[in-house]
Amino acid sequence: MSKNNTGEIQLVMAYIRPDKLTDVKKALAETGAPSLTVTNVSGRGSQPAKKSQYRGEEYTVDLHEKVKVECVVADIPAEDVVSAIESGAHTGEPGDGKVFVLPVEAATQIRTGKTGPDAV
Amino acid sequence: MSKNNTGEIQLVMAYIRPDKLTDVKKALAETGAPSLTVTNVSGRGSQPAKKSQYRGEEYTVDLHEKVKVECVVADIPAEDVVSAIESGAHTGEPGDGKVFVLPVEAATQIRTGKTGPDAV
Amino acid sequence: MSKNNTGEIQLVMAYIRPDKLTDVKKALAETGAPSLTVTNVSGRGSQPAKKSQYRGEEYTVDLHEKVKVECVVADIPAEDVVSAIESGAHTGEPGDGKVFVLPVEAATQIRTGKTGPDAV
Ligand SMILES: Nc1ncnc2c1ncn2[C@@H]1O[C@H](COP(=O)(O)OP(=O)(O)OP(=O)(O)O)[C@@H](O)[C@H]1O
Ligand SMILES: Nc1ncnc2c1ncn2[C@@H]1O[C@H](COP(=O)(O)OP(=O)(O)OP(=O)(O)O)[C@@H](O)[C@H]1O
Ligand SMILES: Nc1ncnc2c1ncn2[C@@H]1O[C@H](COP(=O)(O)OP(=O)(O)OP(=O)(O)O)[C@@H](O)[C@H]1O
Ligand SMILES: [Mg+2]
Ligand SMILES: [Mg+2]
Ligand SMILES: [Mg+2]
Repeated sequence: MSKNNTGEIQLVMAYIRPDKLTDVKKALAETGAPSLTVTNVSGRGSQPAKKSQYRGEEYTVDLHEKVKVECVVADIPAEDVVSAIESGAHTGEPGDGKVFVLPVEAATQIRTGKTGPDAV
Repeated sequence: MSKNNTGEIQLVMAYIRPDKLTDVKKALAETGAPSLTVTNVSGRGSQPAKKSQYRGEEYTVDLHEKVKVECVVADIPAEDVVSAIESGAHTGEPGDGKVFVLPVEAATQIRTGKTGPDAV
Repeated sequence: MSKNNTGEIQLVMAYIRPDKLTDVKKALAETGAPSLTVTNVSGRGSQPAKKSQYRGEEYTVDLHEKVKVECVVADIPAEDVVSAIESGAHTGEPGDGKVFVLPVEAATQIRTGKTGPDAV
């Protein structure tokens, strides 16, 4: 039995490059965790703001467009979901993003009223 | 005294149909939990991607528009907030969405500087 | 050594006025926590819906445009990040927003594969 597979529920939340969403969705489906929610966001990591030129004016790009992916999982170990996202989102260049795991205390599927891991 | 009403703070997070937002807001207000944040998102659940036709071309719809609702609550039991969302968002058809509950460790109201359950 | 600086990872999540984002980003950078993600959201707090007039028609504004700011931190105490957001977002008028802190169980930096506090 795989180690995190103890009926606990977790939210895997990732900030990734928008053009890596297709690869991430594919990697998640292949891992058996196809359910996900996507939000358009913008953000910055640890690198300093980038100075650019537009029609001779210098301006600072300090927020970059990213996509947030949220996957709540119960039967699949969160670490497998993290690995799937990593494999789909990795380029090796700065700006590839981050993946975080948060605890979830309860889950309900609205159509059926199911609760707990079965609802995820 | 109601069971979750022990001063702890929780985030109730739901993914629902956009056209159910009005009913969900009404149900939340009636439960005494009117505060909420809404985000436009897209996502998919456990069902396979749907094939559709547009001008003779077949294409796959794999992400559906949804609305994310976040309600942080302290004095109202999270389970009552979950029930309110369920009652407002339910149609019985696939795609009704999910509700998750996450723990919150601290809260601050920016205008007053209040912290803890009073800040929620 | 500062008090929350024990290697634990936290998500500081704030709902603020859109026109306070620049001040909040500046305050966060000055606190040593420049990394953040921004989402356009709408919401309501505890005040009743506002009635307004448009071309003679009365209508109710019940959701106000806000910005959600997410900062995951490990080496900087979450309370310092909360204070920075408060200082940047405060006007003293209703609608200034809220700041919440959530626990985070794991973190991965996609480019390097680093995990834990070093990944944040
Ligand atoms: N600590 C954080 N809190 C909130 N959001 C973050 C954090 N770190 C990164 N992000 C989000 O992830 C996006 C990509 O971050 P990024 O990959 O540039 O991180 P980084 O630490 O600078 O790593 P790299 O050196 O590989 O660029 C950011 O634009 C932001 O939206
Ligand atoms: N496990 C999950 N993680 C993240 N988001 C999810 C998850 N499950 C559902 N969602 C979000 O909720 C939306 C609606 O999901 P949906 O109701 O189709 O779930 P389902 O499990 O397929 O249930 P049903 O059989 O009733 O359709 C999705 O489009 C997605 O945004
Ligand atoms: N409990 C909550 N759950 C989710 N979102 C909230 C909550 N409280 C506030 N928000 C978000 O923060 C935004 C600003 O809230 P607001 O500052 O009006 O809160 P308030 O409690 O009414 O305080 P104030 O009396 O200072 O106006 C809302 O529009 C909403 O997006
Ligand atoms: Mg970076
Ligand atoms: Mg479905
Ligand atoms: Mg208010």
